[in-house]
Amino acid sequence: MKIQGVIAPLTTPFTHEGEIYPAKIAANVQRLNQLALTGYAVGGSTGESKLLSHDEKERVFALVAESAASEKLLIAGTAMESVKETVELTNHAAGLGYKAALILTPHYYKNLITKPEAQLLYFRTVADQAKIPLIIYNFPQNSGYDMPADVVVQLSQHPNIAGIKESSGNLGKVIEMIRDVKPGFQVMVGHAQTFYPALLMGATAGILAFANCAPYSLITIWEAFRQREHEAALEWQKRISGPVTSVVAKHGIPGIKYAMELKGYYGGPARLPLAPLNDAAKKEIDALMADISS
Amino acid sequence: MKIQGVIAPLTTPFTHEGEIYPAKIAANVQRLNQLALTGYAVGGSTGESKLLSHDEKERVFALVAESAASEKLLIAGTAMESVKETVELTNHAAGLGYKAALILTPHYYKNLITKPEAQLLYFRTVADQAKIPLIIYNFPQNSGYDMPADVVVQLSQHPNIAGIKESSGNLGKVIEMIRDVKPGFQVMVGHAQTFYPALLMGATAGILAFANCAPYSLITIWEAFRQREHEAALEWQKRISGPVTSVVAKHGIPGIKYAMELKGYYGGPARLPLAPLNDAAKKEIDALMADISS
Amino acid sequence: MKIQGVIAPLTTPFTHEGEIYPAKIAANVQRLNQLALTGYAVGGSTGESKLLSHDEKERVFALVAESAASEKLLIAGTAMESVKETVELTNHAAGLGYKAALILTPHYYKNLITKPEAQLLYFRTVADQAKIPLIIYNFPQNSGYDMPADVVVQLSQHPNIAGIKESSGNLGKVIEMIRDVKPGFQVMVGHAQTFYPALLMGATAGILAFANCAPYSLITIWEAFRQREHEAALEWQKRISGPVTSVVAKHGIPGIKYAMELKGYYGGPARLPLAPLNDAAKKEIDALMADISS
Amino acid sequence: MKIQGVIAPLTTPFTHEGEIYPAKIAANVQRLNQLALTGYAVGGSTGESKLLSHDEKERVFALVAESAASEKLLIAGTAMESVKETVELTNHAAGLGYKAALILTPHYYKNLITKPEAQLLYFRTVADQAKIPLIIYNFPQNSGYDMPADVVVQLSQHPNIAGIKESSGNLGKVIEMIRDVKPGFQVMVGHAQTFYPALLMGATAGILAFANCAPYSLITIWEAFRQREHEAALEWQKRISGPVTSVVAKHGIPGIKYAMELKGYYGGPARLPLAPLNDAAKKEIDALMADISS
Repeated sequence: MKIQGVIAPLTTPFTHEGEIYPAKIAANVQRLNQLALTGYAVGGSTGESKLLSHDEKERVFALVAESAASEKLLIAGTAMESVKETVELTNHAAGLGYKAALILTPHYYKNLITKPEAQLLYFRTVADQAKIPLIIYNFPQNSGYDMPADVVVQLSQHPNIAGIKESSGNLGKVIEMIRDVKPGFQVMVGHAQTFYPALLMGATAGILAFANCAPYSLITIWEAFRQREHEAALEWQKRISGPVTSVVAKHGIPGIKYAMELKGYYGGPARLPLAPLNDAAKKEIDALMADISS
Repeated sequence: MKIQGVIAPLTTPFTHEGEIYPAKIAANVQRLNQLALTGYAVGGSTGESKLLSHDEKERVFALVAESAASEKLLIAGTAMESVKETVELTNHAAGLGYKAALILTPHYYKNLITKPEAQLLYFRTVADQAKIPLIIYNFPQNSGYDMPADVVVQLSQHPNIAGIKESSGNLGKVIEMIRDVKPGFQVMVGHAQTFYPALLMGATAGILAFANCAPYSLITIWEAFRQREHEAALEWQKRISGPVTSVVAKHGIPGIKYAMELKGYYGGPARLPLAPLNDAAKKEIDALMADISS
Repeated sequence: MKIQGVIAPLTTPFTHEGEIYPAKIAANVQRLNQLALTGYAVGGSTGESKLLSHDEKERVFALVAESAASEKLLIAGTAMESVKETVELTNHAAGLGYKAALILTPHYYKNLITKPEAQLLYFRTVADQAKIPLIIYNFPQNSGYDMPADVVVQLSQHPNIAGIKESSGNLGKVIEMIRDVKPGFQVMVGHAQTFYPALLMGATAGILAFANCAPYSLITIWEAFRQREHEAALEWQKRISGPVTSVVAKHGIPGIKYAMELKGYYGGPARLPLAPLNDAAKKEIDALMADISS
Repeated sequence: MKIQGVIAPLTTPFTHEGEIYPAKIAANVQRLNQLALTGYAVGGSTGESKLLSHDEKERVFALVAESAASEKLLIAGTAMESVKETVELTNHAAGLGYKAALILTPHYYKNLITKPEAQLLYFRTVADQAKIPLIIYNFPQNSGYDMPADVVVQLSQHPNIAGIKESSGNLGKVIEMIRDVKPGFQVMVGHAQTFYPALLMGATAGILAFANCAPYSLITIWEAFRQREHEAALEWQKRISGPVTSVVAKHGIPGIKYAMELKGYYGGPARLPLAPLNDAAKKEIDALMADISS
């Protein structure tokens, strides 16, 4: 599997009663289908996976699969803390046509699970039983655990572990992984603030929440990188830096959903306890997104 | 509701195939029923709740409820990251006879959820809809979030929030909470290494994982405290300090389950990725638990 | 050496031009001499040691020594990051009549210095060369390093390391150290919020910044502890909890100096970049200290 | 002032008795003079400034100034926690011919000093009184404080603050600063693992400890960047990644000094408590540095 370009980790549209909203899932996906995105990651952090029940996750997987254009790569966020549930959810997604599973590092039982051997055990056991390849998902800002480069390098040897989504923003680690992982193992980033330099260093793709509300800007960076148009890529990288920091890093899912509405997508409410934005936050995002094409 | 004494947050027995083991749940509970424990907390961190499916949690709630002696207080660990799922699981447990719900602070979406207003929103909304009182569960070692004392004080005003299980070991915070919370709000601790001094400062109870493998030692501290036998209580507090640090804090659930077996309870395997203890860990626990009555 | 009771880690009075103010050092010390304090620690964190030059530290050591009543124990804060400078300053203080040196854990070169062997090397080498006994000073809130209990236990074996000032507030660690250190090694605390429970667990003394502005309250806790007047001690512990958290932990040295002025001591300005309190902070402290006898 | 290229933050040679070693300072500097380094930073973290007395710092400033080739830019590491001492040391260095002062963020009194207003106060007050421009030095790995981009942006407005040495490795922050600081303010990096991508994003220079033992590799990256030879620059960036991580980040000053000896410079001992490398560390560095030209 070779993944290149920009992948959107989709938000999950809810009705104002807090229920999954199938029509809006379809509408968002159909509009995104028109763009040069490589694919969709469903059920990740941005998709409020931690706020969905098991049944709801399966439903969202199915709904996105129905609407996605056939050429789009489908990736399912299927991580649970236990090997058992992770395998079950992964193989269910495989049955729906998902081509890879994005697996957040387990992290709750911190005294035990932050040991390298525990992570190796988890990922190898899941990979052995999964019907589709795994992509490791490292997101220490939320999980409180940062998988070291040498553990990633060891996991890259497993035939069913295809890559990593590195969301820490640690570019030194990205370079180290690119140099040392098994050839073919894909280092992707989940940190839009360093997307262009990561590509320059050899990262193959970005799985970027900002693609929900500003896909064009990220696709532009990717295309400029491919055409070796350094000035244009750098200009866009700088342009998105402030908006990404505000919308994604500071305001999180309610920020992304609000910015989506500014650009004509369905945003809608996040699930409690994620609270709606206040007016100051909305104004901040209005100003920052004015400069960003949808 | 007035909770005093020692509560055991039960482990979840699994078969060696990794399935829930009803006979052993019953056996452990029936043996613990003989002791002067105040009650049981089911489905908390120690119960591997993060490694159980929704259905499995409900099953374990039911199984423990069947075996528990009628005078034992039943507390259900029902926290999910979303308000919606937390309320559903809480009210299901209420239907099974659970008298309170132990609710871990939500913590995954750290940039948003660590704000006081997000925690207030979460706990108040759940409390409004829950059929049984809530006990806040603060466990920063795992969650990566430490609820400040003043947020606890604000939540103590809610009529359906009955107390807190403070597991950080921060006794200064315990004192501050005891002084400032609404009268009747119960400050309990989940940190056996400071159980006796916390009682001296006014904490009313301990919800202590160590009670699975060494209930007698904790009950002894409680009784010595009640009888104002300072030397005996201090002696026991010092005696358990090393074993607790090793068994609970260092080796976690596999450590607790192993120590249970040393004392005649069913321990059994933890769920992957929690790995079995190696021989060195077992020897360490053998030595430390030799001095602790079962 | 046996240290019991309350020790005041003195602030350093400055003129409004920012120079050391000998007359006010003398005035504060002479007033404190009247109280049942065990002694003074000079040149510690509270003394703005990090903002004093080497020469100024020596001058302050001399000035306090001149004014201190003969029965007061004098402790010098002499830690520098290097063994060499620490030994020199320690032995200079010994020549001035200081009976012990309070040595903050070295902490700047974090990747190296946080290893147990580096701390053991530092403290043993300094202790070998020092003419007076050392007291380890553990203050992770500022240093970013928390010396583990087992390292303290190893250091307690050295004949010239007499004790520890544990300022973390971690009472579980205090209990563990008291149980395991060499007999005679003194566990003292530098965290007023847990002073009374630490005494109950076996700590021998408090070296407490709050003693600069509220010595009476701390001496009262000590005396109540000694007389086994539990209710009185607990009442005072609760009473100081809020003021200590605000004055010492939140507002730091400018807070302590301001509170000193409220109680008739000389506070004066802290050195830049420690800024004067704003009006809101002053009002907060006014209110909290109103209830505390000087 | 325009600073471009590679600056070596010099180690401080000591005799085996632990005293400053003037002949070896001269020898190292004279050899480095032959290379295309832009200049030297003296008395920074790598120079063991935290382990030098005030007098020794002044002496090292003078010794390096005597040996440095006239075209080399001289930067003095003059940060102390207090404004007063920092100004004094900075102006002393100015008198010796130093053209800029590298000022580590104050960080000891963490509860106060990590507030933006405290940092603004410190840097503005020092800058007002300094006879040479300041370069902010952000090194959270050691200081425990990470100055936010917006504080840097505010400080960039001061006429006597010329730039920043950003050593965190956070490239997203580098991009954000480059976009927002006052034109002419120089963003430099102190993190060799991301040197090339930082240059691509607009950083102007690297102040890199690795330049003590492998100046050629860093100069090569700089030259390849200038010539737009992407493949060569990337190849060298990858090549140094492992050695830098081991020598600088893991083994620190003793690692750098040992690697210097491998390449014909004088390394010598670090000051206690920085301990000599053990044999395993030496072998690790031998292997990693074999591939790196001196």
